[in-house]
Amino acid sequence: MARHLKIRTNKVGLPPGTLVHVGEERTEPVRITVMDYDQDQLREFCPTSIDQCSDYRDRPSVTWIKVVGVHRPEVVEMIGNCFGIHPLVQEDVVHTEQRPKMEDFDDYIFIILKMLKSVDDGAGDEQIRSEQLSLIVGRGFLISFQETEADVFDPVRDRIRKSKGKIRRKGADYLAYSLIDAVVDQYFLILEEVGEELEVLEEELLAGPAPDASQKIHRMKREMIFLRKSVWPLREVISRLSRGESEIFTEPMGIYFRDVYDHTVQVIEAIETFREILSGMLEIHLSSISNRMNEVMKVLTIIATIFIPLTLVAGIYGMNFEYMPELRWRYGYPAVLVLMASAGAIMLIYFRRRRWI
Amino acid sequence: MARHLKIRTNKVGLPPGTLVHVGEERTEPVRITVMDYDQDQLREFCPTSIDQCSDYRDRPSVTWIKVVGVHRPEVVEMIGNCFGIHPLVQEDVVHTEQRPKMEDFDDYIFIILKMLKSVDDGAGDEQIRSEQLSLIVGRGFLISFQETEADVFDPVRDRIRKSKGKIRRKGADYLAYSLIDAVVDQYFLILEEVGEELEVLEEELLAGPAPDASQKIHRMKREMIFLRKSVWPLREVISRLSRGESEIFTEPMGIYFRDVYDHTVQVIEAIETFREILSGMLEIHLSSISNRMNEVMKVLTIIATIFIPLTLVAGIYGMNFEYMPELRWRYGYPAVLVLMASAGAIMLIYFRRRRWI
Amino acid sequence: MARHLKIRTNKVGLPPGTLVHVGEERTEPVRITVMDYDQDQLREFCPTSIDQCSDYRDRPSVTWIKVVGVHRPEVVEMIGNCFGIHPLVQEDVVHTEQRPKMEDFDDYIFIILKMLKSVDDGAGDEQIRSEQLSLIVGRGFLISFQETEADVFDPVRDRIRKSKGKIRRKGADYLAYSLIDAVVDQYFLILEEVGEELEVLEEELLAGPAPDASQKIHRMKREMIFLRKSVWPLREVISRLSRGESEIFTEPMGIYFRDVYDHTVQVIEAIETFREILSGMLEIHLSSISNRMNEVMKVLTIIATIFIPLTLVAGIYGMNFEYMPELRWRYGYPAVLVLMASAGAIMLIYFRRRRWI
Amino acid sequence: MARHLKIRTNKVGLPPGTLVHVGEERTEPVRITVMDYDQDQLREFCPTSIDQCSDYRDRPSVTWIKVVGVHRPEVVEMIGNCFGIHPLVQEDVVHTEQRPKMEDFDDYIFIILKMLKSVDDGAGDEQIRSEQLSLIVGRGFLISFQETEADVFDPVRDRIRKSKGKIRRKGADYLAYSLIDAVVDQYFLILEEVGEELEVLEEELLAGPAPDASQKIHRMKREMIFLRKSVWPLREVISRLSRGESEIFTEPMGIYFRDVYDHTVQVIEAIETFREILSGMLEIHLSSISNRMNEVMKVLTIIATIFIPLTLVAGIYGMNFEYMPELRWRYGYPAVLVLMASAGAIMLIYFRRRRWI
Amino acid sequence: MARHLKIRTNKVGLPPGTLVHVGEERTEPVRITVMDYDQDQLREFCPTSIDQCSDYRDRPSVTWIKVVGVHRPEVVEMIGNCFGIHPLVQEDVVHTEQRPKMEDFDDYIFIILKMLKSVDDGAGDEQIRSEQLSLIVGRGFLISFQETEADVFDPVRDRIRKSKGKIRRKGADYLAYSLIDAVVDQYFLILEEVGEELEVLEEELLAGPAPDASQKIHRMKREMIFLRKSVWPLREVISRLSRGESEIFTEPMGIYFRDVYDHTVQVIEAIETFREILSGMLEIHLSSISNRMNEVMKVLTIIATIFIPLTLVAGIYGMNFEYMPELRWRYGYPAVLVLMASAGAIMLIYFRRRRWI
Repeated sequence: MARHLKIRTNKVGLPPGTLVHVGEERTEPVRITVMDYDQDQLREFCPTSIDQCSDYRDRPSVTWIKVVGVHRPEVVEMIGNCFGIHPLVQEDVVHTEQRPKMEDFDDYIFIILKMLKSVDDGAGDEQIRSEQLSLIVGRGFLISFQETEADVFDPVRDRIRKSKGKIRRKGADYLAYSLIDAVVDQYFLILEEVGEELEVLEEELLAGPAPDASQKIHRMKREMIFLRKSVWPLREVISRLSRGESEIFTEPMGIYFRDVYDHTVQVIEAIETFREILSGMLEIHLSSISNRMNEVMKVLTIIATIFIPLTLVAGIYGMNFEYMPELRWRYGYPAVLVLMASAGAIMLIYFRRRRWI
Repeated sequence: MARHLKIRTNKVGLPPGTLVHVGEERTEPVRITVMDYDQDQLREFCPTSIDQCSDYRDRPSVTWIKVVGVHRPEVVEMIGNCFGIHPLVQEDVVHTEQRPKMEDFDDYIFIILKMLKSVDDGAGDEQIRSEQLSLIVGRGFLISFQETEADVFDPVRDRIRKSKGKIRRKGADYLAYSLIDAVVDQYFLILEEVGEELEVLEEELLAGPAPDASQKIHRMKREMIFLRKSVWPLREVISRLSRGESEIFTEPMGIYFRDVYDHTVQVIEAIETFREILSGMLEIHLSSISNRMNEVMKVLTIIATIFIPLTLVAGIYGMNFEYMPELRWRYGYPAVLVLMASAGAIMLIYFRRRRWI
Repeated sequence: MARHLKIRTNKVGLPPGTLVHVGEERTEPVRITVMDYDQDQLREFCPTSIDQCSDYRDRPSVTWIKVVGVHRPEVVEMIGNCFGIHPLVQEDVVHTEQRPKMEDFDDYIFIILKMLKSVDDGAGDEQIRSEQLSLIVGRGFLISFQETEADVFDPVRDRIRKSKGKIRRKGADYLAYSLIDAVVDQYFLILEEVGEELEVLEEELLAGPAPDASQKIHRMKREMIFLRKSVWPLREVISRLSRGESEIFTEPMGIYFRDVYDHTVQVIEAIETFREILSGMLEIHLSSISNRMNEVMKVLTIIATIFIPLTLVAGIYGMNFEYMPELRWRYGYPAVLVLMASAGAIMLIYFRRRRWI
Repeated sequence: MARHLKIRTNKVGLPPGTLVHVGEERTEPVRITVMDYDQDQLREFCPTSIDQCSDYRDRPSVTWIKVVGVHRPEVVEMIGNCFGIHPLVQEDVVHTEQRPKMEDFDDYIFIILKMLKSVDDGAGDEQIRSEQLSLIVGRGFLISFQETEADVFDPVRDRIRKSKGKIRRKGADYLAYSLIDAVVDQYFLILEEVGEELEVLEEELLAGPAPDASQKIHRMKREMIFLRKSVWPLREVISRLSRGESEIFTEPMGIYFRDVYDHTVQVIEAIETFREILSGMLEIHLSSISNRMNEVMKVLTIIATIFIPLTLVAGIYGMNFEYMPELRWRYGYPAVLVLMASAGAIMLIYFRRRRWI
Repeated sequence: MARHLKIRTNKVGLPPGTLVHVGEERTEPVRITVMDYDQDQLREFCPTSIDQCSDYRDRPSVTWIKVVGVHRPEVVEMIGNCFGIHPLVQEDVVHTEQRPKMEDFDDYIFIILKMLKSVDDGAGDEQIRSEQLSLIVGRGFLISFQETEADVFDPVRDRIRKSKGKIRRKGADYLAYSLIDAVVDQYFLILEEVGEELEVLEEELLAGPAPDASQKIHRMKREMIFLRKSVWPLREVISRLSRGESEIFTEPMGIYFRDVYDHTVQVIEAIETFREILSGMLEIHLSSISNRMNEVMKVLTIIATIFIPLTLVAGIYGMNFEYMPELRWRYGYPAVLVLMASAGAIMLIYFRRRRWI
């Protein structure tokens, strides 16, 4: 849970534009794959040097350079310099604590978004992790940087390979759209899991006050805060893309991005709905604790109110005074028992009248 | 209740524009009815093939193609292709988890809204269900897609048949307005039911703390969240329609849509009012639980405070010491009884002074 | 209280523009009075037919047609048709559940606002009722529709009759302003009553926890929600009127409407202030319930903590063992009494130290 | 406290523009002082008639007419008419329940703001009072209306008299700025007092639950609501003045008003901060009440749980059965005492384990 | 904690533009250091008189005058007058209670921001302090005023000295950017500390209800209010700088300021996240107090409910009636013991059924 509070700090004091990786430590090598395609042909390979990529930079075909791993800044720097990417953009790529944003540099557009996935946290609970995806979209090329190998892009790659849909007939902007669409579709999967978890929790709550319910609610609220932080700024990013104001993302792409925009708004609305439901669940929880306490108190009060007076009566006739005439009466004992029983019965009737039983 | 948390997911990974039905499973066949009318004549029939519809596409008369059931994407696709509808629009039609929206495609306008109905959930409670209504309004034709056969459009159809009102003299835009107006009028019925349920709940609450009140309040709050989600975006949709900026919905329609707009705002205000009242009811509920607990505590305290000291007195004279002079006194026993009675009376007076009784 | 949740429904299914009265049922006849005046002369009469009104329509003098009662739609329709009022406007006049609004129809301006009054609800409580006032302001005429005979306009009529102030020298727009100003002034009276009720409630609360305080607070909160709903949209209406953009309400009227606007804002601010104070009062109430419970608990705890151990001691010496040496001691009994008294005293000192007493 | 809920009503029913004083009743006479100055000379006097003021109206020197007391409308009317002030402005001057605002009448600018002061409310508590200050700023003259003689303007008067700072070299606009600046500076004094009161209250709270803390917090919250209402609209007023759009307050004055604007924003921020802190204090208060109750309950439970079972044991051996073998044992009594002591000790150990002690 | 409520007041009554230091009292001397550099050379010295600074004012090289200590207004005044700084700006420099802002005076730009640092408050807790940093950025010069010697600028100075990065090749605007960037980077350090403190507190809370948790949460909430107040206005300041509208900060600087802007937004988001988490923690705390109380009550109720009835039975057989046949039965005593044991067992089973144990 603590992870969500992490603030990047290891860059403090360095000049702006210095490339230092900020994020989880990783040791695996950086993997680069290149797909170059147009309507007629497709080439796919893992480049051994950056020069291999730059060859494809100015060709009319669409080149997708997919970089997995941003923990080695020198790799990002080489690719960035090769494609003329601004140092501050390179810095943002390796700093994986950015919020989603979009910047238009005329020659290319820089987009940051968050890929979400749900991982097991070891204690049996699912936890949502986010990973930074940086897209640099230029004329005829798209460079994507991601932290780990995620299978969210597999369908897109399949469509390119199988020449399915429009993707082979369209440019780098359509490829960017396809990737963003795949990321946003992933959000729905995450939300579905959260929704199911929420339902389970709600049923537990309605069954009675679970002692750790408030902690679970708190944990889910924090996940919602985290989700909202990851998705909320995306709305603005995609809204800007859908306006078709840049030279890279032109007007005809508008309708596609408006579609993604609608999905993003749906995601945000679902998150807000979950938050409201969680607040309502906390209210139920607190109110059921109070109810339970009320019930406990009632039982205690009924028992005490019936038996304490009777105990006094028994105590009185247990006193050792010499002159207590009742003690000698023939039917004193049964009379007292009857007195006690009827006193108890009267109390019970009284409680029933007040609707305590 | 869980239903409201459903998030569509079965489309993830498919290329954009793929038609896959998202929503409740249905098995009944898709039913299409066509009404073609102008001021003078009216034809009404169930087409056996799509071609029958397309014949009416370019005629000057108004053609209303009413499609009930969107769970067979191929039907939507055929109609869509026949009328030149964008694939993404077709996709939105079959995905029934869209939020209300409006999109202007010059040749036609695409509108999504939510029809609400109240169904019995089996447990005796009314539950609000929503159904997606998609309207495609072009020059001289209107295609409406709905999930189930709803009788909300019957009055409109009657008016067309009986040539009542202006509807036969006006175009497809007026027909669209009539349908939207019928949907929004339906909202008032739903709200009235909710209002009555709210009143019943409120009277229950004022009568005393009902143990399941917080759950009922929670359930109704969730219904309000659900209602708001269905209606809120409609405001923007109708506001845009009322501006008369498109070529389909021209300026003279403005006054009609401003009227629907007013109704929508009334609906939204009513929902917000209900939400605020529900919050207030929860406060009453919690405060009445506290009040009740306070009362219970007072009874317990009064009983305990009066009888426990008296029991001690009885216990003292029940001790078996040999030298307890009081035990031998002639009037020891009645004296103790008087002592006890007066101690009890003093406590009672004290409680009355503190306003506990 | 339930009244505030009423939603109009009896119009559902009818074609738009159908005149059906929505609101409280009334049986009294509709009363129409006409005032026609200019700087020099004044005529006042109750017309027997609509034609009598229409005679005054095109005269240069100002004609004020005051209609009391909108429950007979045919009357509204006749007047409306005579003055060329749009059917949707006529519909809004007879539907008394509209929110305040203003519409500009070039030839006339249609304004809806809410008149408030405080009525006794039979149970001794004052309840705020609202009544719909519709104004149709044209060149040289003003038609006002109200539900019941309200005396709020008497001062305006008096001023016209006595030729006091500017009212006789000015046109229909100034008359409209005078009426709106009178309505808004009425709001202050209502707010003053609410403010006094609030003060009484607050003093009760500060005196101690009243058992029905939360219900009273809830009732007043609901009244505030109701008031806000009636007044809030008026702000926008008057703001638009003060801009002097229409041909009916020209720029020189701006300063007058800005004055009314200021009053409306004051009313809204007062309502918001009342709402915040009510929230604060609920907090006081809940906290005083908790405080009271705390006190009750303390008394119980003190009594129990002192007497229960002493009762044990008495119980021990009440045991019937044969070999209990203390029972034979000469001063066993007084020693035990001293022991008990000192144990009780020690507990009391302890409680005083912990500040419980 | 009740004072803050006051709503003006005694004007209802009168024609607009009627001058009726609304506010606290006062009996002292209205005092007028005039200061007329330019860079070289200064005249200061108390005029005996309005004509004396009007002489200075058109001179190039700056004339400051300071009117103390607005409870005699006829005085305001005379001055107003002499300087050509609109009747609605005169009305606003005598109605002291206005919210801060600014109106531009080309020839003069009308500004309303609130002067705050802290007065002793008799019960030892400081209470914040507000007083309305109306400024009419024209070319070469400034008329200020205030309710009572406030010393907040003394420093400004001193500066004029001593020809200190720029005030003698500048016009009526700079004088207006100086007065507004003096009023806003006064706010800081009030806020400092409030801040100190808040600190005292907070220290009390942290020491333990004070029984009247929630009332004090409520009172301070109400003062914050009152303060905000007085200061919030000023922000907009000064923002408009700083834009230098009118002919009276020209662009070069912008920098001065931006400075006052910054101060006003600081005041508003401080008020909001105080409000948030007060909310936090209520939470502390409620949580410390709960904590205290928890502690009380624990003591009760520990005592009851230890002694009630022991009392049962004593009760058992107090029974009068003839055949109770233990009673005849030689060491029965000490054995029971040991049994009781060890049972009590076990309970204590159990409570310590559960961390109740 | 009280420090955050401090409101400056010692300036009240003085003419605007009077330089009076507002802030913490300091006694150390004001220290001025000058750095003058261009691409080729660098001079660094501590001037002995103001004239030494003014020499560098009009040179093409970049001059950074760093003033540490603003508690001697005469020093600020001398420097200000030498560089033609407006008196109101000088006033703002010495008043250290300003909120972040930016003002454009054509010849120079005046920026106020807050440097944060975390200091030990003596009681072992870290407390966040803020210090005002004023920047005056002109063509070729930058004057920075800070309250104490902060090491936050050391990396910038190092970069200038070592001619690292672009800083030596760029102008005063880039220097200003570097300083602001350093200040914002510092915020991340502070937030990281806060995040860690939050985690520790959260773990404490989840372990059980800590008695002083609400106070700690309150203290951290206040720190968040304080942080937000210091950082929030900076967003607007940097946004304006990034637009490149002034002549000092031209368009090419935009990309750098957009980067700082992103960081500022991240800081603000983190603060808001912390605030939400703190609210959630209070809810956990309150709910765990209630839970704990519930548990305590249950124990009390179970004990009382089992033993009080048994005590009554023992009391009954302790009564001294002469005719109590059971007392003489041979197995009366064991029978009663068995009766008691089974009654207790039944109660236990009942509690287990109700899930109280």
